[in-house]
Amino acid sequence: MSVTPSRFITVPLEHASRLLNHGPTVLVTSAAGGKRDIMAAAWSMPVEFSPPRIAVVIDKSTYTRELVVASGHVGLCVPGAAFADKAYAVGSASGRDLAPEDKFGAYAIPVVTGPVLGLPLVEEGIAAWLECRLIPERHTEAAYDTFFVDVVSAAADPRVFSQGHWEFNEGNADLHTLHHLGAGVFVCAGRTLRAKPLA
Amino acid sequence: MSVTPSRFITVPLEHASRLLNHGPTVLVTSAAGGKRDIMAAAWSMPVEFSPPRIAVVIDKSTYTRELVVASGHVGLCVPGAAFADKAYAVGSASGRDLAPEDKFGAYAIPVVTGPVLGLPLVEEGIAAWLECRLIPERHTEAAYDTFFVDVVSAAADPRVFSQGHWEFNEGNADLHTLHHLGAGVFVCAGRTLRAKPLA
Repeated sequence: MSVTPSRFITVPLEHASRLLNHGPTVLVTSAAGGKRDIMAAAWSMPVEFSPPRIAVVIDKSTYTRELVVASGHVGLCVPGAAFADKAYAVGSASGRDLAPEDKFGAYAIPVVTGPVLGLPLVEEGIAAWLECRLIPERHTEAAYDTFFVDVVSAAADPRVFSQGHWEFNEGNADLHTLHHLGAGVFVCAGRTLRAKPLA
Repeated sequence: MSVTPSRFITVPLEHASRLLNHGPTVLVTSAAGGKRDIMAAAWSMPVEFSPPRIAVVIDKSTYTRELVVASGHVGLCVPGAAFADKAYAVGSASGRDLAPEDKFGAYAIPVVTGPVLGLPLVEEGIAAWLECRLIPERHTEAAYDTFFVDVVSAAADPRVFSQGHWEFNEGNADLHTLHHLGAGVFVCAGRTLRAKPLA
């Protein structure tokens, strides 16, 4: 099922935090001990541009959390609008209940293999992905379910992110990022505004 | 300049995290020792629904950070599309350079007073606000500029958020939330999608 990334283009690490700067819902992917998982997470944010560093909330009850803690690695995929149904599905079921199968198989989600950490990642219907390494922070993980991670590789679909910039237009509506309002309702990235200097 | 909140409607605390669930840019407001400030922050996220709890990144160099640490209080305002120019302006200048004036005055931003903490908040051009109390976490503040806060009061413009739900439509485009792509370019909340169960 794993294939090598193809259409995606590498995003330089100094631009990696921009992939999450506008608050999209992400899919968190993980693998450890021959198991792998994917779940949706509405709560993530960059905390630094250089080095590119992200905080992401991963609930204690999740199978993903077991695999993340075991491996020290976290994949983050930024789904496009066409992926909304699958994003909600992988956010609603637990991979624990599917063993020995997993959610990639159950929901027919094609997997690509991350170039640095070998993480399972997704490109079909996805705008961008990031491979990340956990910075152990036991207290914030326990108290706030908040994990800090360093981005070690990133790539994006050049139809929607290239040269370090998002470009949302009518031609790439399927790749407009999803922003979770709750209960399976998402708002998509819409029109772009450029702030004007105040007089 | 301070007036009492009027058109806004109180958001019950159990719905407060939903105001930031979809990753909007926020304005961080603060006051201490007779000084007050407002700055833009692209990086915030809920970490808990109940109690409503938020993480927000406030850089060490900012005047806002001085006031937040001094007071232990943080205001978060969610600007609408019509506020984009001012959001970028308050994110680009430092209140330190304006003393004894402040950015509210310099950019003609009308202030309302928070009902619980007395924080300076904004409603004109704004979709929602939250008053928050700092949870001291010295390590994550120092290492990641990340502040954890508990929401103690919240309110929203009922034209865009009511009964615990965002409603973005053609009639309230000025209140569509802003999501910062970088360098003063924002993408607005656009069309709404409801995920369908997978077959």
